[in-house]
Amino acid sequence: MKVENIIKEKLSRRHLIKSAIGAAGLAVAASGGLSMLSSAEAAKKKSATLPWPYKKFTPAEIKQAGEIAHDNWFKGFCSYAALSGIVEILRKKVGEPYLSFPVELTTFAHGGTSGWGATCGTLIGAGVAATLVAGPKTGEAINNEVINFYANTALPIYVPDHPKAEIKSQNVSNSPLCHLSVGKWMKKEGVGFLSPQQMERCARMASDMAMKTAELLNLWADGKFAPTVKAPVFANEIPSQNNCTDCHGADIPKTSGPFGTGLDLLKGGH
Amino acid sequence: MKVENIIKEKLSRRHLIKSAIGAAGLAVAASGGLSMLSSAEAAKKKSATLPWPYKKFTPAEIKQAGEIAHDNWFKGFCSYAALSGIVEILRKKVGEPYLSFPVELTTFAHGGTSGWGATCGTLIGAGVAATLVAGPKTGEAINNEVINFYANTALPIYVPDHPKAEIKSQNVSNSPLCHLSVGKWMKKEGVGFLSPQQMERCARMASDMAMKTAELLNLWADGKFAPTVKAPVFANEIPSQNNCTDCHGADIPKTSGPFGTGLDLLKGGH
Repeated sequence: MKVENIIKEKLSRRHLIKSAIGAAGLAVAASGGLSMLSSAEAAKKKSATLPWPYKKFTPAEIKQAGEIAHDNWFKGFCSYAALSGIVEILRKKVGEPYLSFPVELTTFAHGGTSGWGATCGTLIGAGVAATLVAGPKTGEAINNEVINFYANTALPIYVPDHPKAEIKSQNVSNSPLCHLSVGKWMKKEGVGFLSPQQMERCARMASDMAMKTAELLNLWADGKFAPTVKAPVFANEIPSQNNCTDCHGADIPKTSGPFGTGLDLLKGGH
Repeated sequence: MKVENIIKEKLSRRHLIKSAIGAAGLAVAASGGLSMLSSAEAAKKKSATLPWPYKKFTPAEIKQAGEIAHDNWFKGFCSYAALSGIVEILRKKVGEPYLSFPVELTTFAHGGTSGWGATCGTLIGAGVAATLVAGPKTGEAINNEVINFYANTALPIYVPDHPKAEIKSQNVSNSPLCHLSVGKWMKKEGVGFLSPQQMERCARMASDMAMKTAELLNLWADGKFAPTVKAPVFANEIPSQNNCTDCHGADIPKTSGPFGTGLDLLKGGH
């Protein structure tokens, strides 16, 4: 059996998530007592369990999600933009539990998490949307595809109906990091941070990630979603990007064999 | 007026979030009609607006949040662990809307976002918890402090009641990135990825971030929370970490003046 499969079996996401739901369920039961709940209250508690209902987006609604994401960037930045682009459509198409969902909850993730230049906030907002709709396991698989698209595509692609600035450049980031992605693009465009061009570019990135996520959710709803790439944690034996030389130059550290000493653990049947 | 203050004024978070709430409110009104809603339905919709109710954690509850985070790492990894550590306490202390909150929604953020080694998932889970309790603006300020703590402290600190492995090392990551944080720690400890030691260390990181977030939320509830550090986006004029030489060596690119051409934008009164 391949190492990857051993890992998958040992750390089965299905099992992990099932356990997680089990724990949450126990917490609910312990804190209230389900038998004492009204049906309205039971319905509320039900929204604690993912996935939530989904109705496929039409092509017009996918574009609309992109347009909302673009416009909402200027209200709450990138993570709020990508998440709200999808959730606003679902509020109209599906209603609850999306209507009572606090869509601002990842606003802090802008600027690569509270301005620290790490994961691009659009990928956090899009990942939450994918998880609400498809659950944690499939949501993560969809998010992995979206990140791969983000890192390996000349972006932004979407041209909004009402741009706030004209921009010339598309660029491949080779990375999910805000700092690298926006930094490389600004260098190519010849503009600085908080220039109208940079803000317009980041707003369009939110559109692209919301739209790509909606496209993959539609495929999944049709039973046609199939992952095309491994998460780098499996490919590189450590959580990582694939642009090793960007930071390491030629001096890329070796991992200590397949999953390091982790392999011994797995062989030992821990 | 200092550049930072100009930026703050122009991109006032208060204004941004107010607009965001406004947009969400409009979406709710457009999709259902608030006047036609039952009081139960109105209460549900209310949960779309942050912040949610909070009751200060006792010292025992802060420890309990750490213990839950540690144990839940082994059920859903780091981001789920940090978020559920706080939410499970709030479900018991406060009840709704935490009982109906889908606490698995950031599970994908483990491994630095779906295994890409970027923002440590504990910081995403902790950031969502801070935002639910304190709203987007204060939630982000708290998250910035938590990330600063994460990057500049020898971690992990918390020793759980039921460790799954013994570990020897604490390490300063100088970074919010999963790849750097866990990579440097593994090198110091002399273990590989998915070793029992690495998993135990990451579970304790979730405890530390959940507990630090709860401590800061308690300060905030007492009106005593005061930010101690600027987000790097303000300090470095681009979303970034403060460990520039880790990736750039001595060849750190210059930004093009205060906020690049963004300063011209701001002078122009855009």
